[in-house]
Amino acid sequence: MHLGFSLLEIGLTRQKNTINVLFKNIFIVTVGLLLYGLVGFNLMYPGAFNGVIAMPHFGIGLGSMQNAFTNADGTLYASGGYTYWTDFLFQGMFAATAATIVSGAVAERVKIVPFMIFTVIYVGLVYPIAGSWKWGGGFLQTMGTPFYDFAGSTLVHSVGGWAAVVAVCLLGPRIGKFKDGKVQAIPGHNLPLATTGVLILWLGWFGFNGGSVLSADPSATSITLVTTCLAAAAGGVVAMLVSTAMYKNLDLTMFLNGILGGLVGITAGADQMSPMDAILIGAIAGTLIVFAVSFIDKLKLDDPVGAVAVHLVCGVWGTLAVGIFGALAGFNQFISQLIGIAVYGVFCVITSFIILIVLKKTVGIRVSEKEELEGLDVHEHGMDAYPDFRLNEH
Amino acid sequence: MHLGFSLLEIGLTRQKNTINVLFKNIFIVTVGLLLYGLVGFNLMYPGAFNGVIAMPHFGIGLGSMQNAFTNADGTLYASGGYTYWTDFLFQGMFAATAATIVSGAVAERVKIVPFMIFTVIYVGLVYPIAGSWKWGGGFLQTMGTPFYDFAGSTLVHSVGGWAAVVAVCLLGPRIGKFKDGKVQAIPGHNLPLATTGVLILWLGWFGFNGGSVLSADPSATSITLVTTCLAAAAGGVVAMLVSTAMYKNLDLTMFLNGILGGLVGITAGADQMSPMDAILIGAIAGTLIVFAVSFIDKLKLDDPVGAVAVHLVCGVWGTLAVGIFGALAGFNQFISQLIGIAVYGVFCVITSFIILIVLKKTVGIRVSEKEELEGLDVHEHGMDAYPDFRLNEH
Amino acid sequence: MHLGFSLLEIGLTRQKNTINVLFKNIFIVTVGLLLYGLVGFNLMYPGAFNGVIAMPHFGIGLGSMQNAFTNADGTLYASGGYTYWTDFLFQGMFAATAATIVSGAVAERVKIVPFMIFTVIYVGLVYPIAGSWKWGGGFLQTMGTPFYDFAGSTLVHSVGGWAAVVAVCLLGPRIGKFKDGKVQAIPGHNLPLATTGVLILWLGWFGFNGGSVLSADPSATSITLVTTCLAAAAGGVVAMLVSTAMYKNLDLTMFLNGILGGLVGITAGADQMSPMDAILIGAIAGTLIVFAVSFIDKLKLDDPVGAVAVHLVCGVWGTLAVGIFGALAGFNQFISQLIGIAVYGVFCVITSFIILIVLKKTVGIRVSEKEELEGLDVHEHGMDAYPDFRLNEH
Repeated sequence: MHLGFSLLEIGLTRQKNTINVLFKNIFIVTVGLLLYGLVGFNLMYPGAFNGVIAMPHFGIGLGSMQNAFTNADGTLYASGGYTYWTDFLFQGMFAATAATIVSGAVAERVKIVPFMIFTVIYVGLVYPIAGSWKWGGGFLQTMGTPFYDFAGSTLVHSVGGWAAVVAVCLLGPRIGKFKDGKVQAIPGHNLPLATTGVLILWLGWFGFNGGSVLSADPSATSITLVTTCLAAAAGGVVAMLVSTAMYKNLDLTMFLNGILGGLVGITAGADQMSPMDAILIGAIAGTLIVFAVSFIDKLKLDDPVGAVAVHLVCGVWGTLAVGIFGALAGFNQFISQLIGIAVYGVFCVITSFIILIVLKKTVGIRVSEKEELEGLDVHEHGMDAYPDFRLNEH
Repeated sequence: MHLGFSLLEIGLTRQKNTINVLFKNIFIVTVGLLLYGLVGFNLMYPGAFNGVIAMPHFGIGLGSMQNAFTNADGTLYASGGYTYWTDFLFQGMFAATAATIVSGAVAERVKIVPFMIFTVIYVGLVYPIAGSWKWGGGFLQTMGTPFYDFAGSTLVHSVGGWAAVVAVCLLGPRIGKFKDGKVQAIPGHNLPLATTGVLILWLGWFGFNGGSVLSADPSATSITLVTTCLAAAAGGVVAMLVSTAMYKNLDLTMFLNGILGGLVGITAGADQMSPMDAILIGAIAGTLIVFAVSFIDKLKLDDPVGAVAVHLVCGVWGTLAVGIFGALAGFNQFISQLIGIAVYGVFCVITSFIILIVLKKTVGIRVSEKEELEGLDVHEHGMDAYPDFRLNEH
Repeated sequence: MHLGFSLLEIGLTRQKNTINVLFKNIFIVTVGLLLYGLVGFNLMYPGAFNGVIAMPHFGIGLGSMQNAFTNADGTLYASGGYTYWTDFLFQGMFAATAATIVSGAVAERVKIVPFMIFTVIYVGLVYPIAGSWKWGGGFLQTMGTPFYDFAGSTLVHSVGGWAAVVAVCLLGPRIGKFKDGKVQAIPGHNLPLATTGVLILWLGWFGFNGGSVLSADPSATSITLVTTCLAAAAGGVVAMLVSTAMYKNLDLTMFLNGILGGLVGITAGADQMSPMDAILIGAIAGTLIVFAVSFIDKLKLDDPVGAVAVHLVCGVWGTLAVGIFGALAGFNQFISQLIGIAVYGVFCVITSFIILIVLKKTVGIRVSEKEELEGLDVHEHGMDAYPDFRLNEH
């Protein structure tokens, strides 16, 4: 999964920042897993708690894992037939994904150390607290009509997406992105890797959504895989058709982002939809992507990989879609979905703003102009990604 | 699987057509899945039918899937222990593979829109009709000694391979491929990606052939994985040895194509062979590859990735091998295999010829000379695959 | 798995030797599998034998596999719930890994044909004989406190690592690696591929270590996956922190090698450790990597990919760690671990030295200076890996 995100992000950015992108992503996965083991898992799945924040369990993640290990027996299994351990890995990967989404949006100009600090706080504290409200049995789960988010359109993708918006606003656009009020395309340097990334993500989503069934029930799992797959295909094809109609160009990156948009869109209700619902949800996500990318450009926000359009816009759409299509559709559910979206939006915007504004006012979050122009690889890492190749400068 | 095919195809072609190759392949997967859901699945698995074409079920694929979903219960499972849904994904991927094979053969000179039209018709109609004759319980399944094709040496690979031959003939060779009667090598631009593609395909074949057992029986599945693996290894090693003997060169691409040839060769009978049979089948496939590539060159046919040698020649060989080696070997089986090969050959050559000649006479199927020389990426997509790298022109 | 090793090795070497690296790795996988089928499997798992070498079974691997196939019934299953066939594939992959480790260490200067001969002997004879002493039920398994190596820190990684040391000593450093007594960095040409390789290896290790549970017991398997994952993360983070402290540089390759070191380190006891043990073992492995890489440089040994530091140093560490941490920790176990390490060290150093010195004195093992400077791709393979790109020479 993280391989997919990494390849997508390097493919869609310039070669002079490639090492930086890889480093950030490797940092997110490794530190994310450790943090989630040390803190996050117990913060997110505290057992009985007040429904908002589970203080007493803070910091004892590994301790209780160790107990579970020592006393390993039948009680180790959660009710769904999956193990405590599998669930930890699974949720740890989800946690890291939230930071990965931000990574794409701030690429090519963020200072690496402040980004690492942001990652630690966001993955270690913000994500698991937010997650506990629904998946940990908190107030969004216990309210009248429970908020529904099967595999994280809101809990993972929009949690990352909101922080991405905040970060993009506070960082400002890359040098040269907006000239005389016009948007300048800054093409990614390696489209084969970007495409590879998307296809790996598609495959990884089978794990995300298939695994979120949290059981080995082959019927439920395979229905989920079909809806996931059809939404991805519909998202891609529709984004391609819409963008071709608008720009008279068979645009590969729009095709790829459409696939991702379809995947994010189906994620909230992948187990509740019929195949035809899935196609419709994906198709709408694919349409949204094209307009969202253009709208974000108009706002003079610079999001190099389209993370906001894919993860936030389609995450919100997918969450709403649970109230419109499929087995749960209904007015009460729609309202619950709106409440969930609003709660996560407010919480994530506020927390990410606080973290980032403190970092901005203290250590700064943006590299110097010289460093940005010459590339982060040379300045932050002292390395070239492709030393044997002759390169164009831009 | 399709990631593997995409990487192989871009690796073995020139950088100026990379976006085009990626776009074609992403189109095939997404549209192939949607078409297979809307039309193909029911056309191919119609239940009781006349054995040749299942008209009444046409166009209701998703409808009946939706019913199955609504009434989800024990009856959802087919007898083999796999679910209706898994089977759909699996068969949808097979369907798209047939078009992917053609994509490789026509690379670097085909017009993209006519190719997209061809894909829609071939994946949406030709493949499922042909498939129904055997896997849908049609006349090749119900005849005296049933034709046998475990995982598609004929139903998938030669269905793609025959269309590839027809397309290559109608398109003509790339500019510069044959000069003064001599074959000019046009080397692929990214051998690491091509190699990655082959290794991913090998892994994907485990899914193809292992999944074709259509059950979770670990014994049958793992025997199939062993025969698949040994045939691939034998195909690669023998192709490498034969080509080294002939050309005094340790040729990486021949090694890679030998592996693919071994995989295609074992596909028809992967569950019927002993390990030693598998090694022999792979070794013969590896030998065939080297001679087939050279023979196709002599015919002045230009197949940039060797798709005809790999998928058609080894697909036919693998289908015949079921009558020669393994548990089903025998004269009657051999004749049935010949009948199957002939039926698919005639049907695919005729249908692909009709589709392609109509496209050729109306919209045209080949890009202009200028576009071919300057690259399809700039002209059809307005994008560069590697904008940061300095490139050689050819 | 082998895709991961291939990508890592090409990523960390120069573009002029890329085809050569790919060719070597494809050769190792294909020939390794065939050899293991024909010879190795029965040599390594001979049933009852004298505990040192199982002569009578030599050369009949496929024969007995064929019997097992013919008489396929309930007895086909080994006690752990996995099949004979799955085990063969699994062990064949392990066998090939030993040669892959050597491949990385000798890259960019080894003659390909002698390397192929070395691979055949080492994978076909040395590895399975050594393996039989523990996994085949030989003397290291039957002694008082049995030597413990869950998934091959010693049996796979140090078996490869010892031969890598011997090969590096006999080959000498690449031209330009040590100038006037100073170490010169020779940067790898494609860091995205190297990173991709490491992430694929991490995923593959889930198979290695998860599969070594040799059963589908979800509890045992998932605990093993958690320890594997946490050790990898800790190894990476600590190696990154230590190398940043020492060299004031956020070094991506050290981060990557730290992850691999953590993985190799946990391999011997992945099923015996608690999560906290795993983090400690990984952290120590990550520290060792940084010092080992620097120490090997000081010895004027040239190991382009850091194979000795990763596979030998961390392999030895991981094996010892079984006597220090986790469920088996204790003085007797520690001594048994030391014995195992020593036995494999002596055997592998002697056998690899004999094979390589004979090759060196007869056909030679190092390419000519001209060939090394101009690249092995042109001279041994007559191919370019990236013919469309303009390259820097070095």
